Amino acid sequence: MNAALDARLPQDLLADLVLANKILYRLNVVDAFGHISVRHPDDAKRYLMARHLPPGMVTAADIVTFDLESTPLTHADKPQYSERFIHGEVYKVRPDVISVVHCHARPLLPFGTAKGAKLRPMFHMCGFLGCGVPIFEIRDAGGMTDMLIRTAPLGKALAASLGDKSVVLMRGHGATMVGDSIQEAVFRAVYATENASIQMQAHQLAVGGEVEFLSAEESEKSSKGRNVPRAWSLWKHEMTAQG
Amino acid sequence: MNAALDARLPQDLLADLVLANKILYRLNVVDAFGHISVRHPDDAKRYLMARHLPPGMVTAADIVTFDLESTPLTHADKPQYSERFIHGEVYKVRPDVISVVHCHARPLLPFGTAKGAKLRPMFHMCGFLGCGVPIFEIRDAGGMTDMLIRTAPLGKALAASLGDKSVVLMRGHGATMVGDSIQEAVFRAVYATENASIQMQAHQLAVGGEVEFLSAEESEKSSKGRNVPRAWSLWKHEMTAQG
Amino acid sequence: MNAALDARLPQDLLADLVLANKILYRLNVVDAFGHISVRHPDDAKRYLMARHLPPGMVTAADIVTFDLESTPLTHADKPQYSERFIHGEVYKVRPDVISVVHCHARPLLPFGTAKGAKLRPMFHMCGFLGCGVPIFEIRDAGGMTDMLIRTAPLGKALAASLGDKSVVLMRGHGATMVGDSIQEAVFRAVYATENASIQMQAHQLAVGGEVEFLSAEESEKSSKGRNVPRAWSLWKHEMTAQG
Amino acid sequence: MNAALDARLPQDLLADLVLANKILYRLNVVDAFGHISVRHPDDAKRYLMARHLPPGMVTAADIVTFDLESTPLTHADKPQYSERFIHGEVYKVRPDVISVVHCHARPLLPFGTAKGAKLRPMFHMCGFLGCGVPIFEIRDAGGMTDMLIRTAPLGKALAASLGDKSVVLMRGHGATMVGDSIQEAVFRAVYATENASIQMQAHQLAVGGEVEFLSAEESEKSSKGRNVPRAWSLWKHEMTAQG
Repeated sequence: MNAALDARLPQDLLADLVLANKILYRLNVVDAFGHISVRHPDDAKRYLMARHLPPGMVTAADIVTFDLESTPLTHADKPQYSERFIHGEVYKVRPDVISVVHCHARPLLPFGTAKGAKLRPMFHMCGFLGCGVPIFEIRDAGGMTDMLIRTAPLGKALAASLGDKSVVLMRGHGATMVGDSIQEAVFRAVYATENASIQMQAHQLAVGGEVEFLSAEESEKSSKGRNVPRAWSLWKHEMTAQG
Repeated sequence: MNAALDARLPQDLLADLVLANKILYRLNVVDAFGHISVRHPDDAKRYLMARHLPPGMVTAADIVTFDLESTPLTHADKPQYSERFIHGEVYKVRPDVISVVHCHARPLLPFGTAKGAKLRPMFHMCGFLGCGVPIFEIRDAGGMTDMLIRTAPLGKALAASLGDKSVVLMRGHGATMVGDSIQEAVFRAVYATENASIQMQAHQLAVGGEVEFLSAEESEKSSKGRNVPRAWSLWKHEMTAQG
Repeated sequence: MNAALDARLPQDLLADLVLANKILYRLNVVDAFGHISVRHPDDAKRYLMARHLPPGMVTAADIVTFDLESTPLTHADKPQYSERFIHGEVYKVRPDVISVVHCHARPLLPFGTAKGAKLRPMFHMCGFLGCGVPIFEIRDAGGMTDMLIRTAPLGKALAASLGDKSVVLMRGHGATMVGDSIQEAVFRAVYATENASIQMQAHQLAVGGEVEFLSAEESEKSSKGRNVPRAWSLWKHEMTAQG
Repeated sequence: MNAALDARLPQDLLADLVLANKILYRLNVVDAFGHISVRHPDDAKRYLMARHLPPGMVTAADIVTFDLESTPLTHADKPQYSERFIHGEVYKVRPDVISVVHCHARPLLPFGTAKGAKLRPMFHMCGFLGCGVPIFEIRDAGGMTDMLIRTAPLGKALAASLGDKSVVLMRGHGATMVGDSIQEAVFRAVYATENASIQMQAHQLAVGGEVEFLSAEESEKSSKGRNVPRAWSLWKHEMTAQG
């Protein structure tokens, strides 16, 4: 059955998912850790994601089909990401979401850890941050843990913290971002990370500490447009050239 | 007519414009976004710039001829940069300008966003900053927007903010710099970005916050000389070696 | 005798030790300086480490066998690292330790030098820092020196400062970290360095200076799991691809 | 005569000088600008340095012989570095100096520009900074200039500011460092730059602002040893591998 499931998957989508893994790695959004999934194109109650591998090593043959309980329907004999519940639980409560990235991008970590800090949109590439970026405190949901979203209840709590937003920071851990396509989720992961680096420097530079962020209206307006496909076209071009 | 126009363009200038796109990308002045143009060598009322593509992917076949209303005279069937009005409106009011770069270079963004911050010349490579670096606030010209210079009036407002200077920062967006050649515009884009990184660190290091910038006279004197062709020779050498 | 000793060494362990040298170099944990050793698999009173070479240049033929006095039992005609006593003295007092890294990783240096600074776990990859990171002050052990651990007594003092911890910072010098395998020692060296970079930024970002670190329980729980082999698999993959 | 002079130069020294140019470029000590010279091995009143070229493009055929007035004795038909007087004037007053580097390494610039900042040795690789790092203010010697050491009198003033030290910072410009060999001058350029980056972070991290530097005695002791040849062996290995 597993092989049959795989064979029915559109090759383009598989190729994009593999490419997304490589892009996230090459752009330092993920290192050996982190993952990206996409909702199954023919079945909203399933999603696709690599088996337990560093993103930079993923190939099409490693893509597993999961149900929304995050049970693997293929590759069941292989180890899976322990945090796959992030993906399944977000897909359950966010029908608009087609793709989910989980990462430990370095510049995002201080924003989830420094008291009083708040990630806010610094430029028009990051309008998607304008609706707010919640911080998930796992102690509220699970007490003292190993910080990982190892269970459905923890995944549900994270998804609740994300709410209707684009990005949720996870204290002492990393971040999760969503999109209406693989391309948008990758774009948001890359530019949320860029925004964090820029914002840290702006705070240090500001006399009196004040920084002018995009307004709510500027954020909303700037989050539309041709940014995502243009960035994706470059990344695809670069990754293909590198082989 | 379009093909005829293209055929009349000097091949050297086209090659330099393509090379400039690659240099700006490899030196992290642009990513998938940003653009560089050059005034038409035979017609001051036209300019040349790539069609809507990431700079790292531009080839000679992608170079479009525009009039100063930023209407494409070639490649009219292709999508164009929505912010081409930056270029047309600057060329209209600055007859001395031969080339324009628009970018979102990361280190420049805090200087357009942190209140009270001011980009000033840290070393002799950046004398061109000594005449002052205005900050363009798009809200003054267009109210709440998506931050982009999508129209001629917004382009005019930006050109007015630039005035007779070399660089204008754009709040929540990026920067635009001009030069008397492709080489000078690229040089200013690269070194304005370098200056921003260095200046941020100097402010953090300074006891009492004081930093000694180049004086007006030092700036003016140091902005002359052989810097531009020497830097260009290296960049050309490197890009050619990379293929 | 030397040749015979070498021939008995397991080829896999030698390959991993050489690979570890390359990984530490490529990930900027070491530059021309620094070293990694592993306890001899068949004799707990011996250890293996390269002769006096930059880690990026080490091959299997350069691996020397030392006794715990740090006397070379092979390659005795070649120069050895002057700081080999770090390794021998740690192995003497820490029977649980199988591998030792000594480095001058840049982000760790401020934490050994800035008064009042304390390296603490920022995220779940660095739970191994949660038990505390002592700072070794060589002046207490040796007065005014050239900062190097050139003798057994200095090595003993450093090992005493390390105690039962995973990492010890060395003021004005660098750091030493230990693990129960080559893989774990490399992992700790890489992620202690990452943690330092992240923590510096968090302190600068925190309003009022407060940063939320992993708790002792979170640290302990998160330091278990599949992190080490997953990171190693990527690094091995990358180094092999680079040849 | 010029050809004859060149032919008499030891090929090893020429190769090292060319290699030094490449190393300084690859390690970001220089970009298109900066230069390194070596005293003539057979005539203490002459020195060797490339003609006016970016260091990354220098080959053995580009090495010019200068007298200590910085007049080119070969390649007289080619443009020369306008700042060659740095080299000639230092060689005149420092018989112990065999090699001189001039650069604009980014991390050094804030230390020459931020009031009250002082570059001091952070770790044992930088003991050579322990004797003090003067800051050259060109306004004292030449009033308002283009910042460049374009004349013998400016070169003399810089050499006087350097005194018997290893490194002199130049306000609004860069730095000059000296050594008893090409290898030592390159080493000092690389590690002074590293020290600057580390020290900036230590100041930001220190509670109350206090940082523990190497003492004078530690600096002196640690500046001896095998560091220079070991670093050079790695850099030579790397540059040769890159072709």
